[in-house]
Amino acid sequence: MNELRDSTSPTRAIQDLSPSDGADAFTELTSEEAVEVAERLEPATLARILAEMHPHSAAALLARVQPPTVSRALAAMRPDDRVDVLEHVPPALHDRVMRDMTPSEAEEVRRLEQYPPESAGGIMTTEVTALHEQLSVDEAIAELRRRRRQEDQVYYVYTVDGDGRLTGVVSMRDLILSDPRAKLATAAREAVAVHAETDQEEVARQLRKHGYLGLPVVDAERRVLGFIAADDVADVAEEEATEDIQKLGGTAALDAPYLSVGFLEMLRKRGGWLSVLFVGEMLTATAMGYFEHEIARAVVLALFVPLIISSGGNSGSQAATIIVRSLAMAELRLRDWWRVLGRELRTSFALGAWLGLFGFTRVVLWQRLGWVDYGPHYVLLGVTVWVSLIGVVSFGSITGSMLPFLLRRLGFDPATSSAPFVATLVDVTGLVIYFGTALILLRGTLL
Amino acid sequence: MNELRDSTSPTRAIQDLSPSDGADAFTELTSEEAVEVAERLEPATLARILAEMHPHSAAALLARVQPPTVSRALAAMRPDDRVDVLEHVPPALHDRVMRDMTPSEAEEVRRLEQYPPESAGGIMTTEVTALHEQLSVDEAIAELRRRRRQEDQVYYVYTVDGDGRLTGVVSMRDLILSDPRAKLATAAREAVAVHAETDQEEVARQLRKHGYLGLPVVDAERRVLGFIAADDVADVAEEEATEDIQKLGGTAALDAPYLSVGFLEMLRKRGGWLSVLFVGEMLTATAMGYFEHEIARAVVLALFVPLIISSGGNSGSQAATIIVRSLAMAELRLRDWWRVLGRELRTSFALGAWLGLFGFTRVVLWQRLGWVDYGPHYVLLGVTVWVSLIGVVSFGSITGSMLPFLLRRLGFDPATSSAPFVATLVDVTGLVIYFGTALILLRGTLL
Repeated sequence: MNELRDSTSPTRAIQDLSPSDGADAFTELTSEEAVEVAERLEPATLARILAEMHPHSAAALLARVQPPTVSRALAAMRPDDRVDVLEHVPPALHDRVMRDMTPSEAEEVRRLEQYPPESAGGIMTTEVTALHEQLSVDEAIAELRRRRRQEDQVYYVYTVDGDGRLTGVVSMRDLILSDPRAKLATAAREAVAVHAETDQEEVARQLRKHGYLGLPVVDAERRVLGFIAADDVADVAEEEATEDIQKLGGTAALDAPYLSVGFLEMLRKRGGWLSVLFVGEMLTATAMGYFEHEIARAVVLALFVPLIISSGGNSGSQAATIIVRSLAMAELRLRDWWRVLGRELRTSFALGAWLGLFGFTRVVLWQRLGWVDYGPHYVLLGVTVWVSLIGVVSFGSITGSMLPFLLRRLGFDPATSSAPFVATLVDVTGLVIYFGTALILLRGTLL
Repeated sequence: MNELRDSTSPTRAIQDLSPSDGADAFTELTSEEAVEVAERLEPATLARILAEMHPHSAAALLARVQPPTVSRALAAMRPDDRVDVLEHVPPALHDRVMRDMTPSEAEEVRRLEQYPPESAGGIMTTEVTALHEQLSVDEAIAELRRRRRQEDQVYYVYTVDGDGRLTGVVSMRDLILSDPRAKLATAAREAVAVHAETDQEEVARQLRKHGYLGLPVVDAERRVLGFIAADDVADVAEEEATEDIQKLGGTAALDAPYLSVGFLEMLRKRGGWLSVLFVGEMLTATAMGYFEHEIARAVVLALFVPLIISSGGNSGSQAATIIVRSLAMAELRLRDWWRVLGRELRTSFALGAWLGLFGFTRVVLWQRLGWVDYGPHYVLLGVTVWVSLIGVVSFGSITGSMLPFLLRRLGFDPATSSAPFVATLVDVTGLVIYFGTALILLRGTLL
């Protein structure tokens, strides 16, 4: 009795939650509990919860529950959500599920799977209301009443001609406010549509631009294939931001929540970039080796190496991050590079001079206070640090701000010019700038 | 004649564009051209374009055009957009514009301005349809037809009781599909509402969670004050992502497009963090000074300083970026820190061992190939590099992954643990780890 209550109560609790709270609740369960709860939930409830989970986590759950539960839950999902989850399940489960479907369901999955997951076709739902433009408003309303159970999310009715080609759009509001006897064609406004192959970022841009709650997806002949709601695209904006943030942090996009990424996959995604950066950073050892003679003569020079190269790295990371985001938000375009260069030259010179003043003061003050002994030429050493910082901060900012433009121009993602990538580039150059400055300013004294 | 055509053609071209294309077109104009075009546009067109511009840029434009143009354009804007722009104009212009408004318009601006710009009250529009719940569906439709010109965006009708308190929501679709003689109260579903003081991030979460196209904003007595549409909140998500990205890049949030930020403001926003980081980074000079004796005895040790500390910085940046984003997306919670720590320990040990293998090979191979001369103890030097890299990469990843949790726990924004911030922390510790390892492994040989 008690055992029964213990095992049903989480199920009952989850049954009563909203789907997104239910999805959250699942993350609290151990994987055995999750399987048990999933088996006991109504298929419709489970379907709504699966749709709210990250497809990666939903697929992992389905891979562990009984086959009939999988089939019933998938059957109750919206076609687009179903395909999202199916993309993430192991191939064997995918094949079994496809065999269990009705031929028309399987056909629909195959149709949706043919579109890349990040295209309009990949994110659309096939639940869309398209009516002949010659129907009257009254007839259209009657038709909507008849269909009410089948289609869940109706914001717009799309009007089509005799060949099924999109001719216009009527919002629910227009439908209410129009003369009941008017033809739909009269009530309709011009429809903005996206092609099934359009990238989801472009879909998000179109939605934002036109302020619609959703857009119809059409094929090359402008026949209506599906619908993308604004809230699906809100997720797209978040995903794209996550990808950009992860790339800027110097890691491959994880494409899944942190805790769902396996050990080896995490190693691969982080180790790849780290290895590339490490190989680049090896050049610092080469550069340092080149100045080994100078370091041996004036060890004091080595003390400021980390301070100077990291200042270049920090200013470069700043500039790269700002420019990458501005490019992503279309606040800057490729042809603005020249204006950005002008601004960065001024800003970075001022920043470098300011930080250099700090550095100079640090060297002179510590010496005067007797905390360190940099030898008799400490003022010249301070000037070397100052001048190097102007050079390194300027070089860092210019590299960090121009690299995203260059990457975009070459057709790469600007976010690849991550903070660590720019820092690595600037480290090597920073050493050359620092020791070069020292060779000029300290010749005959320290060197 | 020719002069007239030249000066009217940009106006005409912009008049024909969609508002968001119009806003883009404005960025192409010099500031004189922009003023000229703004003066010539229809007030309604100018209003729609201003609403699409960044409020910062829209305010800058209005500050330069003739007072009557300003007043007419503002009068034609939606109240929420109007307040967004007014928040960014100089105080003198703000006061003058308020005097030119009708008392009821000015009252509405003051009412909206009392809410913080990032609260529900600050982003809502006051254009909302609230009808008495005892009206029939037919009466409600008749009332909507009557109001049609005044209210632009009607997705939902909110039902209120005799005291004006929110009792439910009826979508346009429900209105169409309901029995015309039924009371609104029967057709209505339970309404989710947000309070005017709610933070916009929470509004975005509620919208995503419930899948509505917009939410009503209510006061403490649940009286309907306004409405927030999903597309306004899509902008919120983008703004928040931009803020996070900029903080992660080690700069204060710019709050405006790159090209609109003035020279001094840019210096302040970037210089602030750079100065803090620089002061932190000064500790590297102290740490290096502490090991000056060892560097003097074995200059070869100095050569690998940049390589080792930057590897710690890169792995720390990676970890911090991944965790900050996961926290922001609520994929991780505070109490997950323990699981993250376990995963990071394993991952970072493996990554450090892998990079260390590279480093070791670099030292031994270069020596064997005769490209450099690290002396007779080059294998021990290689081992020192290897062991240090394991320590530094592990320390970097642990610091980078735990700092965001700590910041959130203390009530700060996790994004403050930016890539440059973590890198700076790790640089100082990295030096201690490296020279400490050297002191142990190289005692009696190089040291």
